[in-house]
Amino acid sequence: MKILNLDSISVVILDDEKLNYTGSEIEPLWAFKKFNIQKDSIIAFNGALNVSVKNMKDLKDIKEESKYGDVLIKSSNAINFIVEHFDNPDLKMIYLRQRILVSIAKEIIEEITNKKLKRNGDDLYYNNGKLSVSIACRGISSAKIHLGINVSNIGAPDYINTSSLGDLGIDIHDNQNIIDIMEKIATKYGEEMDKIEKDMRKTMYLI
Amino acid sequence: MKILNLDSISVVILDDEKLNYTGSEIEPLWAFKKFNIQKDSIIAFNGALNVSVKNMKDLKDIKEESKYGDVLIKSSNAINFIVEHFDNPDLKMIYLRQRILVSIAKEIIEEITNKKLKRNGDDLYYNNGKLSVSIACRGISSAKIHLGINVSNIGAPDYINTSSLGDLGIDIHDNQNIIDIMEKIATKYGEEMDKIEKDMRKTMYLI
Amino acid sequence: MKILNLDSISVVILDDEKLNYTGSEIEPLWAFKKFNIQKDSIIAFNGALNVSVKNMKDLKDIKEESKYGDVLIKSSNAINFIVEHFDNPDLKMIYLRQRILVSIAKEIIEEITNKKLKRNGDDLYYNNGKLSVSIACRGISSAKIHLGINVSNIGAPDYINTSSLGDLGIDIHDNQNIIDIMEKIATKYGEEMDKIEKDMRKTMYLI
Amino acid sequence: MKILNLDSISVVILDDEKLNYTGSEIEPLWAFKKFNIQKDSIIAFNGALNVSVKNMKDLKDIKEESKYGDVLIKSSNAINFIVEHFDNPDLKMIYLRQRILVSIAKEIIEEITNKKLKRNGDDLYYNNGKLSVSIACRGISSAKIHLGINVSNIGAPDYINTSSLGDLGIDIHDNQNIIDIMEKIATKYGEEMDKIEKDMRKTMYLI
Amino acid sequence: MKILNLDSISVVILDDEKLNYTGSEIEPLWAFKKFNIQKDSIIAFNGALNVSVKNMKDLKDIKEESKYGDVLIKSSNAINFIVEHFDNPDLKMIYLRQRILVSIAKEIIEEITNKKLKRNGDDLYYNNGKLSVSIACRGISSAKIHLGINVSNIGAPDYINTSSLGDLGIDIHDNQNIIDIMEKIATKYGEEMDKIEKDMRKTMYLI
Amino acid sequence: MKILNLDSISVVILDDEKLNYTGSEIEPLWAFKKFNIQKDSIIAFNGALNVSVKNMKDLKDIKEESKYGDVLIKSSNAINFIVEHFDNPDLKMIYLRQRILVSIAKEIIEEITNKKLKRNGDDLYYNNGKLSVSIACRGISSAKIHLGINVSNIGAPDYINTSSLGDLGIDIHDNQNIIDIMEKIATKYGEEMDKIEKDMRKTMYLI
Repeated sequence: MKILNLDSISVVILDDEKLNYTGSEIEPLWAFKKFNIQKDSIIAFNGALNVSVKNMKDLKDIKEESKYGDVLIKSSNAINFIVEHFDNPDLKMIYLRQRILVSIAKEIIEEITNKKLKRNGDDLYYNNGKLSVSIACRGISSAKIHLGINVSNIGAPDYINTSSLGDLGIDIHDNQNIIDIMEKIATKYGEEMDKIEKDMRKTMYLI
Repeated sequence: MKILNLDSISVVILDDEKLNYTGSEIEPLWAFKKFNIQKDSIIAFNGALNVSVKNMKDLKDIKEESKYGDVLIKSSNAINFIVEHFDNPDLKMIYLRQRILVSIAKEIIEEITNKKLKRNGDDLYYNNGKLSVSIACRGISSAKIHLGINVSNIGAPDYINTSSLGDLGIDIHDNQNIIDIMEKIATKYGEEMDKIEKDMRKTMYLI
Repeated sequence: MKILNLDSISVVILDDEKLNYTGSEIEPLWAFKKFNIQKDSIIAFNGALNVSVKNMKDLKDIKEESKYGDVLIKSSNAINFIVEHFDNPDLKMIYLRQRILVSIAKEIIEEITNKKLKRNGDDLYYNNGKLSVSIACRGISSAKIHLGINVSNIGAPDYINTSSLGDLGIDIHDNQNIIDIMEKIATKYGEEMDKIEKDMRKTMYLI
Repeated sequence: MKILNLDSISVVILDDEKLNYTGSEIEPLWAFKKFNIQKDSIIAFNGALNVSVKNMKDLKDIKEESKYGDVLIKSSNAINFIVEHFDNPDLKMIYLRQRILVSIAKEIIEEITNKKLKRNGDDLYYNNGKLSVSIACRGISSAKIHLGINVSNIGAPDYINTSSLGDLGIDIHDNQNIIDIMEKIATKYGEEMDKIEKDMRKTMYLI
Repeated sequence: MKILNLDSISVVILDDEKLNYTGSEIEPLWAFKKFNIQKDSIIAFNGALNVSVKNMKDLKDIKEESKYGDVLIKSSNAINFIVEHFDNPDLKMIYLRQRILVSIAKEIIEEITNKKLKRNGDDLYYNNGKLSVSIACRGISSAKIHLGINVSNIGAPDYINTSSLGDLGIDIHDNQNIIDIMEKIATKYGEEMDKIEKDMRKTMYLI
Repeated sequence: MKILNLDSISVVILDDEKLNYTGSEIEPLWAFKKFNIQKDSIIAFNGALNVSVKNMKDLKDIKEESKYGDVLIKSSNAINFIVEHFDNPDLKMIYLRQRILVSIAKEIIEEITNKKLKRNGDDLYYNNGKLSVSIACRGISSAKIHLGINVSNIGAPDYINTSSLGDLGIDIHDNQNIIDIMEKIATKYGEEMDKIEKDMRKTMYLI
């Protein structure tokens, strides 16, 4: 486990173990319970992704897809990011941050692969194949984001056209490649949030 | 003038006149005073960009650059975006939105030009040349963003290495090209904000 | 079903079906789950009103009235309004909006019937008979109001002196009368909220 | 001067002196500066009403009416209410409260005069004549409302069709009548705000 | 039961009965449910203190101490304070208030006993023995604090070095001494919160 | 100058120069303008304290004392603390923090001098002599505190009974003593704020 402690956020990369995303990681205070983190945080990890309907937070997905079975969001191999912020009780703020995280993921993957992705809201596409899943939501005292990016297409739902880091030409059998991408995305997100905190403290107000 | 009225934001493109950015456009309620807009808004326009020190809001820029004279931020030809939101008194929120606007500008320009830009916080670079200037700030009841993107390098400060849409291969003498870029960026920003409003209303909370 | 889509709020009138109010309609995201509404909303419907103690949110009512049995708030025929707003995590705001909704209901009913009502907080009275029930409350990411207005007194609790639209001289057997009242109240509430959004964007701040 | 000290708000009636409204009374902390009030407050007073353009906060009024001269909002004899709340930095909240104050004014005047008024947003009308002016706005740490109601039409702008308490049949030459109306409106507003504070503290949240 | 009704907060001293603290008193609206309080409040009472793991809110304590059994926070005789505020949805605010409450407890106890305590965050120590336990947390519409202070060491967990009011030289067998301390701490907290409300309404903002 | 960079706040001690407090240091962004601090901060310094009426923010002081002249708050030798936080637009929060800062000052001075102080709101007293002055206030995007503590009584207003660190037995001619006190108070305040940030991230919410 690798930790980068920025002033306002901890960036954690699980580089020495696999961890599956099951949907319970989106719960408040997961970062404290599992990793003793007492700061805002972004945690990156690699593993299978399986969210059962009862753990899904996107009611639209549930409506549209529950005909397909009980586990709708799945991938045999994905990189996952869990973000938690405690700074503002507003729901909108976590959605704004989600868009920033997804934009950063796009920037990093394009830079590494030299391919072009499409971003539509919180979804990334490559060649019309859905590369990512994401959700933002709030609990009482914190707000959370999950972003999952397919490493391979194996195990993805067959009623959706998906894409993966493998399709983008990354050698996904070399674990270091996966860790590098996780680290670059998580670090850039952490640095962006940290820079915003600093920018807020050098700007004149309007009168 | 072209107006796209989305539910939560008005997107305005000044396609039939030039307008210079002088720094006073960042003031609260400018969109109402000038265009009678009574919604959150993004206004796009094309013209010269000249911000004197007294109109600058970034105290760091003032510190570092005021040795160079009284007008520090300037370009003979730029596209400008003025964003105003009235929904939350938090300063951080407008910074998050600024990052989203700058990311969208990057996405659109890369798409049109097929060239790669670098984004560092709220700055865009092409070939190490600074392509944009931006500021986010708050008044008492609204928050505002200015984003300016060089159309040409002429008139840019000579102590900064700049770049421009011209450098990126866009035929800047065809006014329609400039209008298209303004419209695409402003529209995508408006749609992003509008989609976030909708996403907020379909997501389960965490307990 | 009739929908009026204002910029900041959807006004929905169930004019082609009856719907009972059971207390579960106050739950967050009911408008999305049932009607796919992804905006702030006011939903008006007509049907019986039966709230069991376990679905009641007013702890004072529970204390004072639970001696009377398990279903305390009931009417065989009522018009109901369910309001949901996602814009501010403050509990007080939904109470302010509740008072506005109840005031609007009073204005509309007085206009239609040419009779005088009394408003005391969130309660309406006609001839000392309680005409309405209302509750305002908050979940994690939205705030909700329920307002129920007796169409007839049949089925109201016998330990409370009630009144109804029938008592006010409205021909309640003509369904169109009921729909008209629902629509006028819901529409005026929606327009009021929408106008406030616009007013906010034309007013100078104080320094 | 008569003061009713409710838990969360002070209700002040200037019953022993006249006071003109000039527009400066809308400034933050006026209630403290003039009356030593250190609570949220509603202050009611009777006098002439003259707001010059430089003291106006409604930019729409300024746009539409500044052709008529420098003093646009005027009445030789009006009752005025100045409300100040310190509890929430949100601009919308003061607009919601403004609507409640105007609705209360309507309720009280209808009750006293047995005539029907029309309310349109923050305006009251009698026989299509404008009876009132109102503004809501925010400073850095408080939010304020002004509501003025014409006692007589003398001195009102001649390009607007106005009405007054005199038109409604009130004997405006009996000063006690004016004081009674001021007191009833201010007291009901104070009690409404106070009851909302209490209601907030007896209501279950939603999960 | 003794009640002091300040403008913004009720101070309640249970001087005529014992009440044990079990952890459920931290739940939202407990003051309303048990004492019909419809204001912000501080309730002081004396009794045993036993919080089982399932009622604990401090996840760090749970992690570090759950090896010791199911009831970790316990004292056969403690004074307890339960604070509830409804004014701001921010988690941080209740932590700031917790520190103020603990500082006030320190001030009062030092004054009465003429001994010196140490405060470390939300913990009080006498002679390196832990004198108090405290937690601050939030529900959806209110925020709460519990502060417990050992009256005697009997029944405290044996794996922690504790201290008590008895150790500080107070005659704890005279019930009036205990009531006096409860009342002084609760009253000073209430007055402090009330004075802050007043201070907020006499201070110029910064421009 | 000595800087302690905690995660959420910078603690700055001016140990190598004197600085007078004139009232302008309370202005927003002073810490950035003078010391390039881009975090929340507490800055401690030693020098004369002279606040003219036009720089005073406490309107009550102005009312009560302006008869005494133009410079009301003055001391020839004081330690001063300037705190700035950017995290929440609520006015109340800075008042809560002010009380914590004053309580910490009391704790530290009592510890060093082994004498007892009295705290009344934001004022400290020794032997009925006023030891300190303090103000908390808000700008648009930050909130600030000033706390000044008399080092000597020389130059204090003669119509107020004052006390000083000299009266408390500190050898104020040894500069290191003054620096130690400044550093201990500022550091404890910084650590308290930092610990609150951590505590917020380990606590279960209430449902």
